[in-house]
Amino acid sequence: MPELRRDPIVGRWVIVDTDHPNHPKDYEYEPHRSHGGVCPFCYGNEAMTPPEIDAVREPNTHPNTPGWQVRVVANKFPALQIEGELEKRGLGLYDMSNGVGAHEVLIETPYHNKDIPDLLNSEIESFLSLYCRRALDLAKDKRFKYIMVFKNFGAAAGASLEHPHTQMVALPMVPKNANEEIKGAHNYFEYRDRCIFCDMIRQETQDSGRVVLENQHFICFCPFVSRFPFEIWIVPKKHNGLFCHMPAEEIPSLAAILKGAITKMKALFPNLSYNFLIHSSPVNGDGHTDGYHWHIEFMPKITRVAGFEWGTGFYIVSTPPELAAEYLKKAKI
Amino acid sequence: MPELRRDPIVGRWVIVDTDHPNHPKDYEYEPHRSHGGVCPFCYGNEAMTPPEIDAVREPNTHPNTPGWQVRVVANKFPALQIEGELEKRGLGLYDMSNGVGAHEVLIETPYHNKDIPDLLNSEIESFLSLYCRRALDLAKDKRFKYIMVFKNFGAAAGASLEHPHTQMVALPMVPKNANEEIKGAHNYFEYRDRCIFCDMIRQETQDSGRVVLENQHFICFCPFVSRFPFEIWIVPKKHNGLFCHMPAEEIPSLAAILKGAITKMKALFPNLSYNFLIHSSPVNGDGHTDGYHWHIEFMPKITRVAGFEWGTGFYIVSTPPELAAEYLKKAKI
Repeated sequence: MPELRRDPIVGRWVIVDTDHPNHPKDYEYEPHRSHGGVCPFCYGNEAMTPPEIDAVREPNTHPNTPGWQVRVVANKFPALQIEGELEKRGLGLYDMSNGVGAHEVLIETPYHNKDIPDLLNSEIESFLSLYCRRALDLAKDKRFKYIMVFKNFGAAAGASLEHPHTQMVALPMVPKNANEEIKGAHNYFEYRDRCIFCDMIRQETQDSGRVVLENQHFICFCPFVSRFPFEIWIVPKKHNGLFCHMPAEEIPSLAAILKGAITKMKALFPNLSYNFLIHSSPVNGDGHTDGYHWHIEFMPKITRVAGFEWGTGFYIVSTPPELAAEYLKKAKI
Repeated sequence: MPELRRDPIVGRWVIVDTDHPNHPKDYEYEPHRSHGGVCPFCYGNEAMTPPEIDAVREPNTHPNTPGWQVRVVANKFPALQIEGELEKRGLGLYDMSNGVGAHEVLIETPYHNKDIPDLLNSEIESFLSLYCRRALDLAKDKRFKYIMVFKNFGAAAGASLEHPHTQMVALPMVPKNANEEIKGAHNYFEYRDRCIFCDMIRQETQDSGRVVLENQHFICFCPFVSRFPFEIWIVPKKHNGLFCHMPAEEIPSLAAILKGAITKMKALFPNLSYNFLIHSSPVNGDGHTDGYHWHIEFMPKITRVAGFEWGTGFYIVSTPPELAAEYLKKAKI
């Protein structure tokens, strides 16, 4: 019989198909393909992007020229604009505001065709450090309340450019989904005086069978209440609300586990497209963020979301996370 | 400058691109295509589905044989199973339950290649009446708390079979998204003693420019806080919480406006895939459903949802609903 599972943080129910689970071979997905053409993120094409905001570069090279290892630029088609004060106003029963915010793109590598599994650990560490540096810089702007870091890899995952990159959006308000998670974690904390994510790490580590990878500072598991088949979370073992406050010594561990997890994922699903997101506490806030714990949620793009999921927030998961973890554990790094 | 808009019901913010809006020609989407093969929903193949639960049939024809105009069967691969009592239990910090529920498929027409715009109004009325009849029947089962009616049309919208059909799922709990809407509407009702949807109809009718179609009993508009470009809502003008309590005299109006809206949508986007969902009050509940108002939300599948939307619940809408409505108003029926 199918199983219903309830997310203890936000209260979402999912249906897990335990009777006729899908195995990796059962998923038909759109493979990631290179389409060629001129790429604004490749060496030599630096003039095709807005000016460089930050970079990791070889000594004696100049901004907006080759020689970079990681490069941050403003998004050419920003969802929000950096200038102006936030002005909220009503329109009958509706609320609105001008679109103040920042929208940056972090180009992770000069290599057009290298995904995270193809990079050296040190290269991954470089762009992770730059995630933190940019977030800390954006957080200085008191207009911004939330910094959202997310990566779309492959057209099926919504990437409009194939060269590996991550986007960072600074928002003037905390988005609904983040708010719900933070409130849920806070309620748990108020009641138990413990962080729900720390408790989750304890429970997962004991006997769940859902842990895929673990190292000194991080754990990677298929969450009990996955919304998508083969969804994984990467969570720091030490309690910390804000990802950009991650201690420098944790970055090599994060690079290693991120590379390991995506390598395993792509061993099961060649030419996979995927999304990942950093879930973190708000910035410049007065919010109830006790008990929130930053983490990465990784979603392989092997299924399509249909009307049922949109309408209900009630996901049907065709591979139980326990089975997904079994496959991932066996997959080669 | 982009505009931020906040949904007055659930508090979701969206970013509307008012500066560089996309026009219909700017959307590249996966066209709906027929793939051939044997179809279990076509005349003569009735034995390929689970037994008929209900149907609209020609006189003197027998269940599970041709002669039907609309046919309801159990889903061959149900997400939930009809037998058993709901047993909730804990597993450490997680909650779970067995998967009790119903999952039915309503085959809207015997014609494999006829979408709603190709059907006679009377044929659409037949399947809409059957939606109500099945929902009323399922609601008699006190284990069920919510009846979800949704249609996936086309592979891009998540349909696994191309023959036009609608799914109906009876759930043992109210799904999170429905709950949020109901609570939001209830809060508004408590404060103002008015239904937010009724107020929305009033505001849209006055001067919004977002109304696409209107008839005696229904109004169709692009919501101010659309999540998707060219999203439309169809709302009954008379306050009513539960779609299956829709008065019989409203059904011809609903058939006409649904056909009109999808016809216009497909005039702009040929071979469109789409989802629509009926948002309705829970059944068998003691919930605060005052001020909830059933309606249909229709989402053309012309964009992909990427990491940003998943992570934040913060949608970027590349065509303002005012512009979408303008295109839809001009499109031919």
